[in-house]
Amino acid sequence: MINQYINDNKDRFVNELLDMLRIPSVSADARFKADVLRNAEFLKERLLEAGADNVELVETPGNPVVYGEKMVDPNLPTVLVYGHYDVQPADPYELWNSPPFEPVVKDGKIYARGACDDKGQMYMHVKAFETMMQTGTLACNVKFMIEGEEEVGSKNLATFVRENKDRLQGDVILISDTGMLGNDTPSITTGLRGMSYVEVEVTGPNRDLHSGLYGGAVANPINILCQMIASMHDENNHITIPGFYDNVEELSQEERAEMARAPFDLEKYKKALDLSDVHGEAGYVTMERNSIRPTLDVNGIWGGYTGEGAKTVIPSKAYAKISMRLVPNQSSEEITEKFKKHFKSIAPKSVKVEVKPHHGGEPVVTPTDSPAYQAASKAYEETFGVKPVPVRSGGSIPIVAMFKSELGLDSVLMGFGLDSDAIHSPNENFGLFNYMKGIETIPLFYQHFAELKN
Amino acid sequence: MINQYINDNKDRFVNELLDMLRIPSVSADARFKADVLRNAEFLKERLLEAGADNVELVETPGNPVVYGEKMVDPNLPTVLVYGHYDVQPADPYELWNSPPFEPVVKDGKIYARGACDDKGQMYMHVKAFETMMQTGTLACNVKFMIEGEEEVGSKNLATFVRENKDRLQGDVILISDTGMLGNDTPSITTGLRGMSYVEVEVTGPNRDLHSGLYGGAVANPINILCQMIASMHDENNHITIPGFYDNVEELSQEERAEMARAPFDLEKYKKALDLSDVHGEAGYVTMERNSIRPTLDVNGIWGGYTGEGAKTVIPSKAYAKISMRLVPNQSSEEITEKFKKHFKSIAPKSVKVEVKPHHGGEPVVTPTDSPAYQAASKAYEETFGVKPVPVRSGGSIPIVAMFKSELGLDSVLMGFGLDSDAIHSPNENFGLFNYMKGIETIPLFYQHFAELKN
Repeated sequence: MINQYINDNKDRFVNELLDMLRIPSVSADARFKADVLRNAEFLKERLLEAGADNVELVETPGNPVVYGEKMVDPNLPTVLVYGHYDVQPADPYELWNSPPFEPVVKDGKIYARGACDDKGQMYMHVKAFETMMQTGTLACNVKFMIEGEEEVGSKNLATFVRENKDRLQGDVILISDTGMLGNDTPSITTGLRGMSYVEVEVTGPNRDLHSGLYGGAVANPINILCQMIASMHDENNHITIPGFYDNVEELSQEERAEMARAPFDLEKYKKALDLSDVHGEAGYVTMERNSIRPTLDVNGIWGGYTGEGAKTVIPSKAYAKISMRLVPNQSSEEITEKFKKHFKSIAPKSVKVEVKPHHGGEPVVTPTDSPAYQAASKAYEETFGVKPVPVRSGGSIPIVAMFKSELGLDSVLMGFGLDSDAIHSPNENFGLFNYMKGIETIPLFYQHFAELKN
Repeated sequence: MINQYINDNKDRFVNELLDMLRIPSVSADARFKADVLRNAEFLKERLLEAGADNVELVETPGNPVVYGEKMVDPNLPTVLVYGHYDVQPADPYELWNSPPFEPVVKDGKIYARGACDDKGQMYMHVKAFETMMQTGTLACNVKFMIEGEEEVGSKNLATFVRENKDRLQGDVILISDTGMLGNDTPSITTGLRGMSYVEVEVTGPNRDLHSGLYGGAVANPINILCQMIASMHDENNHITIPGFYDNVEELSQEERAEMARAPFDLEKYKKALDLSDVHGEAGYVTMERNSIRPTLDVNGIWGGYTGEGAKTVIPSKAYAKISMRLVPNQSSEEITEKFKKHFKSIAPKSVKVEVKPHHGGEPVVTPTDSPAYQAASKAYEETFGVKPVPVRSGGSIPIVAMFKSELGLDSVLMGFGLDSDAIHSPNENFGLFNYMKGIETIPLFYQHFAELKN
């Protein structure tokens, strides 16, 4: 009955997603503010159509949170669905094969910014909800909170949650904003890395200088910034910030052996990225480096003349955006402080430096013995025919830790994306197979969760 | 008589320069191509008005060379005036107090891109020539060659010179494209640094990646580029490229003591640039670091996300523009090769690197015992009332070495600019005092040169 309904409405389910993908809801860039709001309105309408009650745009100092709910029976467990309708910036545009905000379906995949992260995965829940409503199979109460600031650190979500604790009472947070190992090897994410994100500014002379007349005599802020950044990794690619590893959870050999059982092909991995070699912390393999180990990456750097041709200038300033991925039990705030202190301490007297924290989030590990995880596991097993593997992801969904601390609720991360979806990259895409599988699997989760909770 | 004429025409001399400064003749940026040509035409007209013969725009594969001459008597010495009508890019525009191509006169200074480098200093020669013509005091034959590609490495000038050797026969090259120590301490530049300029590209993964899913597991090209750049200076700020210092001329203690006699105030220097400390090669003082020692400076760097807010990306590529200032007897070509070889050798296996040479030029030292230098020295002494000091400059005018090798001619560098002119920087300016002093001093050079040559 459920599958029948899903099949009959498949094309509409896809087209509605394409419509949303046409809205460039880039939260990091103020120029897209109007589109972000347009996307919130769009979502509000779809939730109403799907049958949600008390649907509204809850204002915040930033972008509104789209809220909606369906309380069928106070005795049934309540599922809080979280997702986000904002997307990453799409640049560099020139690397897209088709415009990022003009979605196209090719070879069974939807290509567009946000196709997977998170519009596609978030909208599966709206359509699964519609399906359960239309087929009279909604087995739990449900509450939607879809935010518009995930890609800029969910600035205002914590406040929203604090101010709406009653309205947000429930039994579990359900999120699809992660991936699976593969379509034949479904997996459920049980760990997420946290993050510290800072922007640094190095100032040398008070104005741009002629590199001939001053070169060699004054500190060049670009050279200095490069030296400072380079010094933050040692020859083993360990991060050199004092105390950076203090609280890092070291996994046991057993846990690492367990992780190593997840299918991974290094040659395929290198080939897919056109790399002659991988690169990372000594003593850890790739799947550990990108999940259970903290990192320090420069996400952007700029300074001096970057135009066409040659300009012989010593710039006054150089800048970098630097993010650190954190693992249990590092604290985002603490790491940001340690970075700040260290960065200032290694600056030579010949320059001035500033460190501006952008946003952070705490790392989390979610339980695998909870009814929610068990329900999700059974749901995947039924739709994919294989028991899903629990995996630790390298990504960050800072709000998962926040939900735990503010609402005391665990999250279950039912992701349906793949590594090849190229989220945050040009040509982001989401498989129609994955989109529809999500819509099929979610109702089964509701069923099993209702059973296991009672 | 000469001074009378200059006084009577002062305002016009200034206004004509302002007119030329309104033309954004930026040679490094193709978007300004039409303006570059417009500037060449403008100059041609002014030379004709001043009384030059055979004035023409000599086409090159790039921007035309403006040529003009006045042969008064085959028995008189011939002065070849060199200058350039192209300018550096003006960005960052936001740091200018007035638009770079809308010149203003304030506190006795002309503010505009090119005010000093080199439109102001070059146009002094056109107006000095007009003055000598109008007052019947032209004591030498004169040939003008004003190019439009100095700021992009004089790509085509060598070809032009080779193809016009007969037309360019003469006794000395006269150039005003350098500075003086101060208005009360005139100086003549007797040495120039050469240059190698390269653009580097570091490629990690074949596409931008999500820094959460891949962070720590693949080479981040920005981090790697920073490490490579940082490694090019050691703890004493010596450059680590193998063989970089092989042919560097080491000055004797006497020569260094002589240099040290030039007035220099370190505290003033630091204050003017708002620096708590200078920065450079161990074992050398500031005035040596920026003149007799070679350098390696990053003039521009870019990669990843540089827009508003935060983007958690590991970019596929990172770039830098790097220039090395060279001293006698380093060879630009040789140094560029050594840089290339070294840069590739230090690249880890996890990235691909490319090095694209931009342009170069050879260092030079000009004689102080020549009639030309003596004539210049006497001219300054008469107009400034002080004997000018010979100084080695850190800047590069690559074509000086080329003139020597192609035409067998030495150059005399009669600069009237000041450090505070901020050439290549926002708010470039040129003192009216300096502009007019140049126009007064140049005719005296012609006089004395004619005497000393015969």
